Amino acid sequence: MSETPHSGLAERAAALDAADRLAGRRELFALDDGVYLDGNSLGALPVHVPDRVRDVLTRQWGELRIRSWDESGWWTAPERIGDRIAPLVGAAAGQVVVGDSTSVNVFKAVVAAGRLAGEGRDEILVDATTFPTDGYIAASAARLTGHRIVPVEPADVPAALGPRTAVVLLNHVDYRTGRLHDLPGLTGAVHAAGALVVWDLCHSAGALPVGLDEHGVDLAVGCTYKYLNGGPGSPAYLYVAERHQAAFDSPLPGWNSHADPFGMTPGYAPADGSVRGRVGTPDIVSMLTLEAALDVWDGVSVDAVRAKSLALTDFFLECVEAYAPAGRVTSVTPVAHAERGSQVALRCDDAEPVMRRLVERGVVGDLRRPDVLRFGFTPLYVGFADAERAARVLAEVLVLPREQAA
Amino acid sequence: MSETPHSGLAERAAALDAADRLAGRRELFALDDGVYLDGNSLGALPVHVPDRVRDVLTRQWGELRIRSWDESGWWTAPERIGDRIAPLVGAAAGQVVVGDSTSVNVFKAVVAAGRLAGEGRDEILVDATTFPTDGYIAASAARLTGHRIVPVEPADVPAALGPRTAVVLLNHVDYRTGRLHDLPGLTGAVHAAGALVVWDLCHSAGALPVGLDEHGVDLAVGCTYKYLNGGPGSPAYLYVAERHQAAFDSPLPGWNSHADPFGMTPGYAPADGSVRGRVGTPDIVSMLTLEAALDVWDGVSVDAVRAKSLALTDFFLECVEAYAPAGRVTSVTPVAHAERGSQVALRCDDAEPVMRRLVERGVVGDLRRPDVLRFGFTPLYVGFADAERAARVLAEVLVLPREQAA
Repeated sequence: MSETPHSGLAERAAALDAADRLAGRRELFALDDGVYLDGNSLGALPVHVPDRVRDVLTRQWGELRIRSWDESGWWTAPERIGDRIAPLVGAAAGQVVVGDSTSVNVFKAVVAAGRLAGEGRDEILVDATTFPTDGYIAASAARLTGHRIVPVEPADVPAALGPRTAVVLLNHVDYRTGRLHDLPGLTGAVHAAGALVVWDLCHSAGALPVGLDEHGVDLAVGCTYKYLNGGPGSPAYLYVAERHQAAFDSPLPGWNSHADPFGMTPGYAPADGSVRGRVGTPDIVSMLTLEAALDVWDGVSVDAVRAKSLALTDFFLECVEAYAPAGRVTSVTPVAHAERGSQVALRCDDAEPVMRRLVERGVVGDLRRPDVLRFGFTPLYVGFADAERAARVLAEVLVLPREQAA
Repeated sequence: MSETPHSGLAERAAALDAADRLAGRRELFALDDGVYLDGNSLGALPVHVPDRVRDVLTRQWGELRIRSWDESGWWTAPERIGDRIAPLVGAAAGQVVVGDSTSVNVFKAVVAAGRLAGEGRDEILVDATTFPTDGYIAASAARLTGHRIVPVEPADVPAALGPRTAVVLLNHVDYRTGRLHDLPGLTGAVHAAGALVVWDLCHSAGALPVGLDEHGVDLAVGCTYKYLNGGPGSPAYLYVAERHQAAFDSPLPGWNSHADPFGMTPGYAPADGSVRGRVGTPDIVSMLTLEAALDVWDGVSVDAVRAKSLALTDFFLECVEAYAPAGRVTSVTPVAHAERGSQVALRCDDAEPVMRRLVERGVVGDLRRPDVLRFGFTPLYVGFADAERAARVLAEVLVLPREQAA
């Protein structure tokens, strides 16, 4: 179905960009004349962040020093920033706390969920298509708590649930294919079986509505460096639904989660609320970098982001279909909107050299070995002309003589 | 023994500063005309750090974006920075990895040490005077692994050791009193009992020689925001002695510790070396802030730091003795050098208002409730005139009419 670039797609892209009410957000980010489709791995830099971080370093740390724990609000940053993220994932205030990595938060969530599930339930179902770290951490948690891990395809979860199920750990969006799983339906099924669900939102938060409160999710974790643009390795977050907080029993009860942390008592007594999910001293520089970055969300509706995301991925798939030589790439991302996140994954035999050539030509996606090209669409700064250009350059690369993987 | 400031101490301070070969380091830090004696809680800002962090944000993140994981060395930062810290704690390269908080590293170390100790040893001895988080985390680890916690004063450890001892978790320096524990002797005693020791170096690293390799320590953890000046909440580190690395079995086996992290395989296979202590994606902004901050150590001998530290705390104690009204404060920091870290802790009935008044007068120490005034001496930027002035201002405050604690 290879067509020339004169198929009218470029003109349509221009019209779509002109009508895009989020288009103005792009100027908030540091971007160049390339096409950055890797915001699902590392979000772009909001341009105002370096000045804000400079203030954190030179004034808050450099001048106020220790006083900043109170005077600059360092001490309360984990829950304050959690409350900034909360509306982006459909959570009321007081349920999200920022800190640690996603892996560490998976550990807290899985162990605590197993304890909440109670005695007699000894199985943890884990998304068999998960980003690997969730599975590794769940297995370690299970080894420590005496649970048994049952790997299961997300679609097969309802059939795998039973009276022994304690916890189900699922990814909202599959990191490889971009498939969006049915959070409301699966959460309901897990609850009907009397178990708890832990959702990993790494590939959905900031790209589409999550609705944690609306759908009665128990616990959730996510990173902040993808669609939330918090910076490389910026702290992750943990959501504990309010109804579970009083019984939330963390396996990492560090002093920051103590009811009276400066009492320095030898006995542990957990704080109330989201603070209970904290562990050690928060990494303030990364955390306040994230806090500054979240300003780009002020006034943005997640529904508008979702609408643009779907329009972008639809349009990109249409452009690939129009431009790419037949048979060279196959989309593994679902066509149905209800099953699609905010990325397009294309299977390609020679994915590694193809992605290398794309990057050389200014179109940055990434590779999931052995044969998946990933293109992430970040509605705050990716436009329709970007999508058209990416598909056009991809088609140019695909008609070049094949090259062996390095 | 209250004397006037005309006792010759100010002159001695000036002479000591003039002879101090580390005095030139002070200009590397952002300091004001006050006396900052809280570097044992939050080290001061090295003045070159903000420009380095700006480069991380604007060029590495803002321009190179995802490419920085390779091109800017982000991916290898945890072990590279670990190797910068290693000589400061007496470790050869390849045994220290940076990341996570101290609390999370205590969890890794205690669980892994318990596994290394093997079956049949079911007791974890924990420093009864510990900074609380170590005790909370050790208790959580023990609950998960089936060990029993035995709180013990560090001096009583030898008597408490036995065939059931698996792990001993100790603080090198007591955060409250500043007492330095006998790391070589206690490590030897633990080994003689067939157990493993985990040392918490938060209050010693960067202030005195630790000698992890020399003394055969098994595992150690520490923070980097005190004497190492890494910034607020900067990442902690984990030391795993080379002889234990092959069997080190982390309870937090995140994808960053996998032998082939980008293979994204469902099965976990640990990497070799210090990398095995990693968990999730490193918080790059905090981590590279720390890396920049470590430049102040280039060319510094830890032995020289220790010599100055002892001279400073000796001199401060002498000044307090000379200036302070009799009976108002009592040092709880050991007189013997072999038992002293790099802080002086003074017991004072009305410690809270006294510290508040000190801070108002530009002398910043901190308080450990209910009755301890802490003064940390950071040899890279605190001088003898600072010590004399701090003692003099303390004496001025102590003769004021008493004030109730707020």
